[in-house]
Amino acid sequence: MPRYALLVEYDGGPFSGWQRQVGLPSVQGAIEDALTKLEPRAHKIAAAGRTDAGVHARGQVAHCDMDKDWDPFRLSEALNYHLKPAPVAIRACKAVGDGWHARFTATERRYLFRILCRRAPLTLEVGQVWRVNQDLDVDAMQEAANRLVGHHDFTTFRSTICQARSPMKTLDRLDIHKVDTVAGPEVHFDVRARSFLHNQVRSIVGTLERAGAGKWSPDDVSAALEARERAACGPVSPPEGLYLMGVGYPDDPFA
Amino acid sequence: MPRYALLVEYDGGPFSGWQRQVGLPSVQGAIEDALTKLEPRAHKIAAAGRTDAGVHARGQVAHCDMDKDWDPFRLSEALNYHLKPAPVAIRACKAVGDGWHARFTATERRYLFRILCRRAPLTLEVGQVWRVNQDLDVDAMQEAANRLVGHHDFTTFRSTICQARSPMKTLDRLDIHKVDTVAGPEVHFDVRARSFLHNQVRSIVGTLERAGAGKWSPDDVSAALEARERAACGPVSPPEGLYLMGVGYPDDPFA
Repeated sequence: MPRYALLVEYDGGPFSGWQRQVGLPSVQGAIEDALTKLEPRAHKIAAAGRTDAGVHARGQVAHCDMDKDWDPFRLSEALNYHLKPAPVAIRACKAVGDGWHARFTATERRYLFRILCRRAPLTLEVGQVWRVNQDLDVDAMQEAANRLVGHHDFTTFRSTICQARSPMKTLDRLDIHKVDTVAGPEVHFDVRARSFLHNQVRSIVGTLERAGAGKWSPDDVSAALEARERAACGPVSPPEGLYLMGVGYPDDPFA
Repeated sequence: MPRYALLVEYDGGPFSGWQRQVGLPSVQGAIEDALTKLEPRAHKIAAAGRTDAGVHARGQVAHCDMDKDWDPFRLSEALNYHLKPAPVAIRACKAVGDGWHARFTATERRYLFRILCRRAPLTLEVGQVWRVNQDLDVDAMQEAANRLVGHHDFTTFRSTICQARSPMKTLDRLDIHKVDTVAGPEVHFDVRARSFLHNQVRSIVGTLERAGAGKWSPDDVSAALEARERAACGPVSPPEGLYLMGVGYPDDPFA
């Protein structure tokens, strides 16, 4: 069966998450239903990152197996046609070998988290950023973030329902910078790792926000990490500021 | 009566436009209804730009007259509280003299128009840009745009229902540039004038898009202007890419 890699963008707002769940709208379900319009049978696709409810993607990667040989561009156009009006778009499609797997071949996941610092309620950014009332100290956040980079036991920073066998992960990058936008000052978290635990990015961002607000010191963040218990985590940030920006592969089909 | 200038941001999507209309949701109506919650009577506010249905604002300016002396910050907070959940936010509030008028004192309106060039349907930018399938030639658009800058009879570029007494306007700026975004290449139109005719920006952008797509030459655009008839205009662009970014005043209350 010919296999195709799909580069997928979506607004996570209306979905219960990436993963198909009975009776709930999901991104996976939307794409599988569109595939059924093209080849009438049950389809099952795999993705690099199973994003939670409300989490967005600019560069999610999935793969599908088809009966027919499709021209990749025509496959993406046909999928986009049938996905309407769901806010899910296939940005690119490439034929890949049958040993290639969107999830298991991936070597890096890249996330962005956006915080918008302002008092006024959101209008055009509703559902797309985490709004906080106060300005945040980016230097303090970066200093605290540096305590988390590298190979650690991230028990503190994973959901109690996380199914990963081990809490050991290597955080390769956690860069924080301020971006001035017309809506106000944003803080962007650029987070990269081979893979993440469930709720790891949101747990880290929520904790670092406390450091940016002056409530936690970098040492408090180190102590939370070393505690290796979920109760030591700061508040988990809401999902709507989180974006799966891209996935790395040894031989990137979209490069 | 103490008068207050309001700096207003909104998502124009759910509204029939700025202006209050019986039985239709409007931005003016939303703010006036919020004012009635603060001082129970009919309120009537004026704004610098009466934006159409679907047009957004980052820096609309309006003014209101109150019975009580309000601390400006508390007035903005109270309005934002009562505006919820409408996507309208008061970003700032200042006390002004009773001779100051949001519309009549204004000396400049600044608009941004965003075009996103990509084939894939919109997800996170739904309702916030005009998506076109093809890449646009920014140099060709700027060359055509330069024919429109200055003092002209803009009959070609105004709605047939425009109520301005004269079609003569001075376009002070029409700068076009490409901006790379994660969603794809955007074309931004930075348009400034003392005042505009009804549908003038959307008529100009729709015509210049044809120049960017290689369908109209700069001379075609000049000929359309010189024709001084509505039928000579290119297609009018949709409203959702248009943003009222700011308003200029001799003594800017928000500077």
